[in-house]
Amino acid sequence: AAHGARKMEDYGRFLALLASALLVGFVSVILSFVWVFHYRGGLSWDGSSGEFNWHPVLIITGFVFIQGIAIIVYRLPWTWKCSKLLMKFIHAGLNTIAMILVIVSLVAAFDFHNAQNIPNMYSLHSWIGLVAVIFYCLQLFSGFAVFLLPFAPVRLRAALMPIHVYSGLTIFATVIATCLMGATEKLLFSLTNPSYSESPPEATFVNCLGLLLVIFGSLILWMVSRPHWKRPPEENAKILRPIGAIPEGTEAESSMTNSSNADKSDLRSNAEAVRIQNIKFDEAGQRSTM
Amino acid sequence: AAHGARKMEDYGRFLALLASALLVGFVSVILSFVWVFHYRGGLSWDGSSGEFNWHPVLIITGFVFIQGIAIIVYRLPWTWKCSKLLMKFIHAGLNTIAMILVIVSLVAAFDFHNAQNIPNMYSLHSWIGLVAVIFYCLQLFSGFAVFLLPFAPVRLRAALMPIHVYSGLTIFATVIATCLMGATEKLLFSLTNPSYSESPPEATFVNCLGLLLVIFGSLILWMVSRPHWKRPPEENAKILRPIGAIPEGTEAESSMTNSSNADKSDLRSNAEAVRIQNIKFDEAGQRSTM
Repeated sequence: AAHGARKMEDYGRFLALLASALLVGFVSVILSFVWVFHYRGGLSWDGSSGEFNWHPVLIITGFVFIQGIAIIVYRLPWTWKCSKLLMKFIHAGLNTIAMILVIVSLVAAFDFHNAQNIPNMYSLHSWIGLVAVIFYCLQLFSGFAVFLLPFAPVRLRAALMPIHVYSGLTIFATVIATCLMGATEKLLFSLTNPSYSESPPEATFVNCLGLLLVIFGSLILWMVSRPHWKRPPEENAKILRPIGAIPEGTEAESSMTNSSNADKSDLRSNAEAVRIQNIKFDEAGQRSTM
Repeated sequence: AAHGARKMEDYGRFLALLASALLVGFVSVILSFVWVFHYRGGLSWDGSSGEFNWHPVLIITGFVFIQGIAIIVYRLPWTWKCSKLLMKFIHAGLNTIAMILVIVSLVAAFDFHNAQNIPNMYSLHSWIGLVAVIFYCLQLFSGFAVFLLPFAPVRLRAALMPIHVYSGLTIFATVIATCLMGATEKLLFSLTNPSYSESPPEATFVNCLGLLLVIFGSLILWMVSRPHWKRPPEENAKILRPIGAIPEGTEAESSMTNSSNADKSDLRSNAEAVRIQNIKFDEAGQRSTM
């Protein structure tokens, strides 16, 4: 009973964090629209600053909010009864939507620059942003080829999973850092009389938006890095087979989850089998715990 | 023999990454001095821009390079024979040095602003930077009180360790993001005729410095988040005592390390005891694996 109560308390804590993250992320998206419509003349696609305005809106919607949700989608407890393959499709699908929004947002920025004779790719924001977009595309394509298509051997999947997790989180953090640089640039460019340093309402408004992006990123990184909130391994598949014969489609559990998940599910009698299998994986350095 | 060879290969990979991180970090520090001396008139303490120049130099030296080394100091294999207490002193000492440099760098920035009648704390850089400094100080004091002083009960240490690890890494990433905003601001302010958008040598130079900071941060985060590179638990202390009587000073191992470390050390015969103890800790949700 005490164990069950603790489980419910932990579930409540997860839901509270999830609600906070969704709220902060959603408010960030809304604020990006408010910024653009209330302070920056709205949206258009005619080479004017209205076209540029798609850039912050689509980046915050796609590259921050949707990518953030894609990162934690395996953590949602009510999806644990869904097949792993379905969850992979949702994870890949959300990231694909994000990538499309990012590409449109880049086109908007370049198009605006070209129409206004502003040079492209001179700023640190553009350099690091481009690096993040390139790595994001590589991550999406390699993830698709290795983890979603059925061709990659289990060993390759297990070896690449820690790298996939680390790259994903590092890209996500870099994207938020790039947003902060972009906001800084845009405020310095746009605010003249009163300037940014005179703290007009728009300056305070966008600073708050920047803070929200950092809070959103921090919440996502906390939720994704708690080992006890990971999707449990496919227990039947994992335990009933001989060690070494890891079934297709469970490589993520094997590589991302330590023995704690199986232990927690009151499967103590099977813990030894899991432990031995985990040693196998661990020795190859294949487990990620981020 | 194969096991030993794999261990050496893994050790070699760790050393290569450590050397890369030290090189990238050290080059970043050098480049911050070159920026300031070659492009920005050097250092002084007289309210002129020479006083401001202490700000980037001390932040990159202290808040990025020294903090980064403090983060991975427990990972250095040749320190594993040193006592945990000594390593805690080194970790806390490096972070204290970093904090002092950060405070001096803040004084330099505020002093320069006041002397030049430039407002303080209006920019997103200053907001997020101040939040990072406040959390860094809280982290240092709470870490000192809980993990270094001998008063905190083991249960509190175990409960706070995952939060300490997460906060530390999130602060570190936020600091690097703040550096990128600061560099963006400084280039936009300082470069006039040719401006930042005309890509004078200083712009390219500082963009490269910004990229190096991101690479440094990424290397540190990779090294610190590999479970098999963690300092092994104090095995004798851990295994010889009855379960539940965890000796003082091993709370970090218990809370930060999963069973993999003990397994790896060829202590298979003792693995069951470690496993049961780990289940205990895991149930309380006290393990961090970041």
